[in-house]
Amino acid sequence: MAGIDFQTDPSRYRHWRIDYDGEVAYLIMDVDPAGGLSDGYELKLNSYDLGVDIELNDAVQRLRFEHPEVRAVVIKSGKDNVFCAGANIRMLGMATHGHKVNFCKFTNETRLAIEDASEHSRQTYICAINGNAAGGGYELALAADHIMLVDDRRSSVALPETPLLAVLPGTGGLTRVTDKRKVRRDRADLFCSIEEGVRGAKAVEWRLVDEVVPNSKWNDTVARRAREIAARSDRPAAARGIALTPLARAIAGERVTYSHVDVEIDRARSLAHVTVRGPGQPVPASLDAAHALGDKFWPLTVARELEDAILHLRSNEPAIAVVLLRTDGDAQGVLDHDDFLGRANGDWLMREIRHYLKRVLKRIDVTPKSFIALIEPGSCFAGTLAELAFAADRSLMLIGTREGDNRAPAVLTLGEANFGWYPMGNGLTRLQTRFLGEPEALDVARQKIGTAIDGEEAAALGLVTMAYEDFDWDDELRVMLEERASFSPDAMTGMEANLRFAGPETMETKIFGRLSAWQNWIFQRPNAIGEQGALKLYGSGVAPTYARDRV
Amino acid sequence: MAGIDFQTDPSRYRHWRIDYDGEVAYLIMDVDPAGGLSDGYELKLNSYDLGVDIELNDAVQRLRFEHPEVRAVVIKSGKDNVFCAGANIRMLGMATHGHKVNFCKFTNETRLAIEDASEHSRQTYICAINGNAAGGGYELALAADHIMLVDDRRSSVALPETPLLAVLPGTGGLTRVTDKRKVRRDRADLFCSIEEGVRGAKAVEWRLVDEVVPNSKWNDTVARRAREIAARSDRPAAARGIALTPLARAIAGERVTYSHVDVEIDRARSLAHVTVRGPGQPVPASLDAAHALGDKFWPLTVARELEDAILHLRSNEPAIAVVLLRTDGDAQGVLDHDDFLGRANGDWLMREIRHYLKRVLKRIDVTPKSFIALIEPGSCFAGTLAELAFAADRSLMLIGTREGDNRAPAVLTLGEANFGWYPMGNGLTRLQTRFLGEPEALDVARQKIGTAIDGEEAAALGLVTMAYEDFDWDDELRVMLEERASFSPDAMTGMEANLRFAGPETMETKIFGRLSAWQNWIFQRPNAIGEQGALKLYGSGVAPTYARDRV
Repeated sequence: MAGIDFQTDPSRYRHWRIDYDGEVAYLIMDVDPAGGLSDGYELKLNSYDLGVDIELNDAVQRLRFEHPEVRAVVIKSGKDNVFCAGANIRMLGMATHGHKVNFCKFTNETRLAIEDASEHSRQTYICAINGNAAGGGYELALAADHIMLVDDRRSSVALPETPLLAVLPGTGGLTRVTDKRKVRRDRADLFCSIEEGVRGAKAVEWRLVDEVVPNSKWNDTVARRAREIAARSDRPAAARGIALTPLARAIAGERVTYSHVDVEIDRARSLAHVTVRGPGQPVPASLDAAHALGDKFWPLTVARELEDAILHLRSNEPAIAVVLLRTDGDAQGVLDHDDFLGRANGDWLMREIRHYLKRVLKRIDVTPKSFIALIEPGSCFAGTLAELAFAADRSLMLIGTREGDNRAPAVLTLGEANFGWYPMGNGLTRLQTRFLGEPEALDVARQKIGTAIDGEEAAALGLVTMAYEDFDWDDELRVMLEERASFSPDAMTGMEANLRFAGPETMETKIFGRLSAWQNWIFQRPNAIGEQGALKLYGSGVAPTYARDRV
Repeated sequence: MAGIDFQTDPSRYRHWRIDYDGEVAYLIMDVDPAGGLSDGYELKLNSYDLGVDIELNDAVQRLRFEHPEVRAVVIKSGKDNVFCAGANIRMLGMATHGHKVNFCKFTNETRLAIEDASEHSRQTYICAINGNAAGGGYELALAADHIMLVDDRRSSVALPETPLLAVLPGTGGLTRVTDKRKVRRDRADLFCSIEEGVRGAKAVEWRLVDEVVPNSKWNDTVARRAREIAARSDRPAAARGIALTPLARAIAGERVTYSHVDVEIDRARSLAHVTVRGPGQPVPASLDAAHALGDKFWPLTVARELEDAILHLRSNEPAIAVVLLRTDGDAQGVLDHDDFLGRANGDWLMREIRHYLKRVLKRIDVTPKSFIALIEPGSCFAGTLAELAFAADRSLMLIGTREGDNRAPAVLTLGEANFGWYPMGNGLTRLQTRFLGEPEALDVARQKIGTAIDGEEAAALGLVTMAYEDFDWDDELRVMLEERASFSPDAMTGMEANLRFAGPETMETKIFGRLSAWQNWIFQRPNAIGEQGALKLYGSGVAPTYARDRV
């Protein structure tokens, strides 16, 4: 694959390994200094780049799907005296603005996936810090449910980004300190100013870690704590995991083709066409049959493929401004699969799949492209796939049939899935967010569950942005796309980041909205990235020179 | 005053006038094109710059204090066929990054002051749009409780910033569209893409305005609606307002001196010393006596002076990194005044003063300086003034006495004022925000109301960051200040913007945190401000050239 590949598997890991001990897994960070994604920097002291985080993301995902028996995951370092030095500074100093932003975003998503695993998969993360956890290293720890720090008069936690690098602890750091750990703001301010960090009892008093443990009792205490936490899980002890096999992905010219997802780039118009295909088979006859299908079970296949497509577009196709989202297939097949998932929600694997679909949809919400859903004859925007239309910035629906096309008119069908399965980062469903000003419209929509809704009705119900007849469709779409592509990409990113998240804010939306926006601003400022800036000069022995105006 | 002066009065207005009609006031925008704050641009079509907004802020303030009889305020245009074209584009194109950011911030504060007046002073704002309300013009309208639009097939509301200027509707626009007006996100997306805006019935259907009125019934309907809304107010019909007289302000060298506030600049150390003095007189004998004091009543005096000092530091002293906040005077006098305000809260003027103090404290929360409160012998950090210590990023308290200083040791005294009078933008008090992780500490603090708390106890209760004895004080403070001044000003701004607002987000914190941060990012991007950027080329007839990468 040209550019960055988000697919990997344990046989290819260079930076992580996993030791299994029954219901506890030890996820061990042992970064290969020579294994950077690009040349020009060494990943010393367990510092990381995007490649390290791609492996972490893969490991978190496989632990959920391939290891139902694992109920607690202990993140620890495979190196002596250092836990993790955070994002590699030379990498950040060399990276383009776009790469820095993308790197932080993906890393934030991985951290949230860890939290999602603790909360929803009941596979709880513990971070065992033996050595220094600095910057992104401590931010990784913050994603764990329980943070343990060895008390050896040396090991510490630190967020030294501001004093050392003139940037923020932007991989969720500041937000998790205030909103998850609920550290008192003046202590947080002090903490973020102390290069060497905080250790021992003070780290507990300041709420930065949950416990400190003497060196002599370290290994025993970590193991005991992991077992205690594992005991609280509802994951089934005797279940067998399913294998996440390599994606069926073919890349040829401007196309990326998966088994149920197609991506086609129209570079001249700055467009990507993404088509998601409905299930090709009926629902499995039983839960056992679904387990036997493994990653060939349609909802899981489509989640994996769509996720890879979105990550590819984000990282490798920055000049693509607009994504046209289409679906193709049998709406009833989608609804049947939703129904199957809904009935079997007590099953650990079906639960995983639903939470995974939720996370993939969330990746769309924070992807800096304009998404436009096109609901046309032959499409299957129903239930889980209808959620794509609600994730889009706009949706267009065709009224009636197309000339020369004998397929039935397009319909949209709501399902239970649209009313609670896939909350956005703000904690609301996409329909709740959509109808914040018209809660009665939400009630009306719920009455329509299972009913095929045509274009005119969908527009009247507020479920789509516009509905056009064949006569107008091409012109309306062409004008919209030309207009969209003519706008400033930056203004679009900022606008979408604001319009997509109405209503309540959560730690998650604060990380993507508030913290990331400030970090992106700082990532542009000469004090960080100029020739005399801290990010450029770090490690050179030359102190940065700052423009002193406060903005 | 060197730089920008935030003080004005109606006799000096160039852009606004107020017509009084009993309980309804008409606040009429009629911008003098030649009255810009700087040279180089003309304020055509009721476009505005900071100077226009300084007058608006003054008018909003005076309506509250000087006109208790006014229960509804109608904002309208004094020009034919145009309501307001928004922020002046040539001004924005010429302005420094710092000025643009400051301008947006102050303008956002003014919009919030309008909303505060509607909600808390029961002086409700109506916006009567006769003509085009574009960009900041519609953002001003969004601050009103009720938006009326004339239906003349021409008048419209629009947010054309993104298509025309490659920036955001950043004076609260996007956030008020999603979170106040609760416009459906795809409609909001469409609306923000349509240069010419939306008019007529569609503007109501899309929730952009509350009503459209035929031209023939316009004046009558506006007047009737204003009277209806006025009738719901609890403002006293027979009360007499108080005059907001010119501030007692003297500027000499590096000092700005007011009657109860001093500002002294230490340019070599990038420091400002701000000292707030407690009341010089006992509390008035009666409510009537307090009214007779007018703006010489201490809580009001101190609010006005502190506000002016903060705005001055923000706009005119960008190179100042740290503000040292001190108080000086009799703590009991402060508590007595709080007690007076608390007992007389049913009185319209006392209510105004409390809400004004709240707004001044909020200005500190969004000021990009590091605030450090110094609690020393002779200080009066009690009740309302203790809130300054909680607004600060850090607070230092002296334990015991100073060598050669026979004043009593410093104390901090909590009052009812600290437990609900002055919510932050996040809807919580500063103590609630401070103790988000330790709610029991909040309960303990409440038990201490009225008790003088010394340095050691204040540190133990978590009310101050650090407490030092005289022996250590100077060194600790010196090191802290040197360190703070050495950090990147941008990183400090971003860090404080994140650490100051833990917990829930509101429309207000979203405006200052999320929307402003994205706008600040866009304000740095070449697509907006480069030589080929939209903000630079606007009006030149040359189309901007955008770098196409999506970030």
